[in-house]
Order: sequence, then C-alpha cells, then structure tokens
Amino acid sequence: MPESQQIERSVFFISDGTAITAETLGHSLLAQFPNVKFNVHIIPYISSEEDALKVVQEINACQQVEGELPLVFDTLVNPHVREIINTANAVNLDVFEGMISKLEQELKTAPTSLIGQTHAVIDSEYYKARIDAVHFALDNDDGARTRHYDKADIILIGVSRSGKTPTAIYLSLQFGIRVANYPLTEEDLDDNRLPKVLREHKAKLFGLMIDADRLVAIRTERKAGSRYASYSQCQMELRAIEGIYISEGIPFLNVSEMSIEEISTRVLQITGLKRRIS
Amino acid sequence: MPESQQIERSVFFISDGTAITAETLGHSLLAQFPNVKFNVHIIPYISSEEDALKVVQEINACQQVEGELPLVFDTLVNPHVREIINTANAVNLDVFEGMISKLEQELKTAPTSLIGQTHAVIDSEYYKARIDAVHFALDNDDGARTRHYDKADIILIGVSRSGKTPTAIYLSLQFGIRVANYPLTEEDLDDNRLPKVLREHKAKLFGLMIDADRLVAIRTERKAGSRYASYSQCQMELRAIEGIYISEGIPFLNVSEMSIEEISTRVLQITGLKRRIS
Repeated sequence: MPESQQIERSVFFISDGTAITAETLGHSLLAQFPNVKFNVHIIPYISSEEDALKVVQEINACQQVEGELPLVFDTLVNPHVREIINTANAVNLDVFEGMISKLEQELKTAPTSLIGQTHAVIDSEYYKARIDAVHFALDNDDGARTRHYDKADIILIGVSRSGKTPTAIYLSLQFGIRVANYPLTEEDLDDNRLPKVLREHKAKLFGLMIDADRLVAIRTERKAGSRYASYSQCQMELRAIEGIYISEGIPFLNVSEMSIEEISTRVLQITGLKRRIS
Repeated sequence: MPESQQIERSVFFISDGTAITAETLGHSLLAQFPNVKFNVHIIPYISSEEDALKVVQEINACQQVEGELPLVFDTLVNPHVREIINTANAVNLDVFEGMISKLEQELKTAPTSLIGQTHAVIDSEYYKARIDAVHFALDNDDGARTRHYDKADIILIGVSRSGKTPTAIYLSLQFGIRVANYPLTEEDLDDNRLPKVLREHKAKLFGLMIDADRLVAIRTERKAGSRYASYSQCQMELRAIEGIYISEGIPFLNVSEMSIEEISTRVLQITGLKRRIS
C-alpha cells in the first residue's frame, strides 16, 4: 500500500500503575492490524481525578490535530478516575470494564481497589525469587562460573550467539527460573562430547539449535567478514552440536524463528519447569 | 481470616501464543482479590480445535473435582477455537471478546487473525533493539566495562545492592533501553565526588537511593553478620551517596518500596527516555 494511504492512529495506554499490563494487552490487539501505523502514548501513574483531567486534555488535543478519534486502552481501577477518562473524545477500550464486576460477582468478595499494592509485591516470595534468579543468571552467564550449577533449575547450552543469554535473562526475570548458560566452543565441539562440568549435570541440560543462515546473519552483525561469522564455520559448529544433543539424549529446540518469549515458553513446556508466579 | 475459610479458585490462562498477555492481564485483575487463593494453570499454544477440546476436558475435570466454576482468561484470536473453549463449564473472561471487533469497526480494516506472527516480531527493529540492549546491559553491568558508556542511553549508579542490575536488565529487556550500571564503592564515596569515568558522562547518570533498613535486609540475605550488611555501614554509604547526588545535581529516586517494573517506569518518566516499542 502506498505510503500516502497508510492509516495512522494515535493510541493511549493509561494506567494507575506502570501501564505495562495495558501496553502488553494493547500490543497483542494492535498486532492484528499490521496495516495501521499506531502512534503510541504511554501514560503511567494516573491516580487522581486531577491527573485524569490533564490526560483528557491531551487526548482531546490529539483528536483535534488528527481529526480522528484516538484509541484509549486503560487499566484504571478507580471508577471515578476511569469515568473522567471516558469523557475524552476517543474510542475507549476499557480493559477492566465489566471484568472486575464479573469477578466480584463470581467470587462473592469485593475488590480491594487498592492502587499499586507494590509493598505486597516486593515482599512476596515470587518477587524475591525473580530478583534472585536475575542475579543467578548474570553470575552464571556464558560459562563464566560453573560451581553453582547444583543450584540451577536448568542449564542452557548452544553455540555462540544462538540465543542462550537473552533466553536465560527472560526466564529468570519473567518466570523466576534459575538459569545458567554455557557456550560450547570449537574446542568442546572438536572433542565430540560434553565437557566434564556439563556431564555432571546432564539432567539439567537443554540445547538451543539454530539454522546456519540465521547464525551467520547474527554473527555477521557482530563481526562481519570473520571466520567466526562464515557459513562454513557456523555449519560445522551446528552439525557438531546437533550430534552431541542427539547422541547424549539432550532435549533441544530450533529457535531460528522464535522470539525470546516464545523460546522461554517452549522451554518450560518441554522441560516441565513451572513459572514461579504469585 | 482462618485458613479453613480461605476461598480457593482455579484459573486458566489460555492463549494461541505464549500466554504472557493473558497472564499479565489476569494477574492485574486477580490482585484486586487478595483474599482468594488462585490455583493457576497456564496453557500456551492452543491453536487447533483439537487442542481446544483437550483443554475443555481439563477445565471440566477441574470443575468436577472442585465443585466451583474455574475462571478462564483467554487471548485466542481464532473464533472457532475460542468458541470451543467457551463450551467449558467455567466463568469465561474472554479478554479479546468485543475488543477486536470494536477495533475492526473503528479502523475500517480487517484483523489478520494470524496466530503468533513471530517472524514479523523477530525481524522488527524493536525486537533487535531489545536483544542488543540485553547484551549491552550484561556487558556493562556492575562497572565491569566503562569504554562503551558513549553508547549508553543511561548509566545507573548507586551503592551495592540498591537494585541497579535488575533495573538495568528490566529496562533493556522490556523497553530496549541501553543501560550501563556502575556501583559506587566505599573508596569512591570516601572521595566524596564522582569517579572520573562517570564525570565524563554526567548527563547520563541516574542515581538509585534506598532506605538503610531495606539495604541492611537485602545485604543480610547475602552476607549475614558482615560489616557490609551492618546498619552503620549502610547508613554511611547512603549518606555519602545522597550527598554526591545532591551536590552534583544528579536525578535520583528512592526505590525502597518499588518493584523493578515500577523503578523502570519511574526512571523513564523522570529522564524522558522513550520505550523502544514497535
């Protein structure tokens, strides 16, 4: 479609907290409309009626400039604040509308309507597990240290730049999983067997696999023209590591077409590890 | 409330993708009902009618055992799959219901109904920026390297265990911000001024502040009974660093009561840095 016909639309994500929930949900929905260019405004920490009135002015100003109604996603708990936002000249996609009252009716207990509740969050076991897991992932990144592998829930292995580090970080931060990661280098692969430190923890190993084309592209961004980034080198390493995965019976996943969210979700599904959530 | 009266309820988060959106939204809603104990089932990658029928059996089995209707949050795009899920004996909180059709009507363009769309995701600038930012945060964690500070969007500073590393990781992974972090040690604080490497990048500095009580608690979990974890040591370091923040005019934030999501959101708000989102 020619650029002049591209539909543009302003979107507001409004929350009394960080706006991360509104943003996550909104993006899932907006991804269904790839032809539209969305101009995103993220507005966290709207807790008073005064704050809300300012946001309404901002939305209305946007509508006046663009001549189209902006889309508004909100996750506001306070009904008074929500009502004010609803007065804006906008298409209101009230995420919580109906849901909280439906839950209230079903659970036969009133919602707290407490905004934030961060204190409860940071003192929860779940939150502490996540923060501990992030520190664990960093301390045990890239084979730097191996002496804490007995405390790991899982040890990701793979060739350099196959996605081990971002996956380890995501699993720890989002799901509270204690993840170590270890790169199998050319020397390891020449041996055609696992290094001793990994053999001792074989039940925790999980392999990442990637197509040679994709690996070449990723390594080229890092070191263009190097042997490290060459097709023949990448292919050789990948054949060797796949051989080890198969001969050692290590579960593995081809992550070439996957985002870190998807790799992480699949790894949990395959290994049976549980998300540590509240 | 005595334990015997605690309300328990099973909850299903069902998605054709990772289920992260359903889970994020569901948790925001369920947090409004702290008196209820929710037994969470997360079910990603439900894309066929066959998959959906199995999930319906699982929900119905759960209902039979518990005698109460389970709560079901789904973010299914395919209407046929969604209809099958809706046949379960459950309270259906269909997240996308109505929203996609409302958007379709407003945007005058049909939704793609493509499930996943991961290929589009991993080739997007946004995704690449996030992965690069994660590698940047790790390479520039804890003052390990300082020669890339010219490429940083922000440099977090603070005393040991004030939350720099988890915040840097969250900002990079979630928002694609390039974050370095540098711990101000006792020697730096004795000088009562910034180390040279930080003075050169003063405009990028952002300080984390924390209450002495909280810092003592965090350091005690790491090294109980040490001088490092003592109240007097923590208080001394915090007074010195607050003095530097104020005298140097460095923006700072007391993070004692904040989750990493909240710290990250506030940091963006104060600095004006923009989330790198699609």
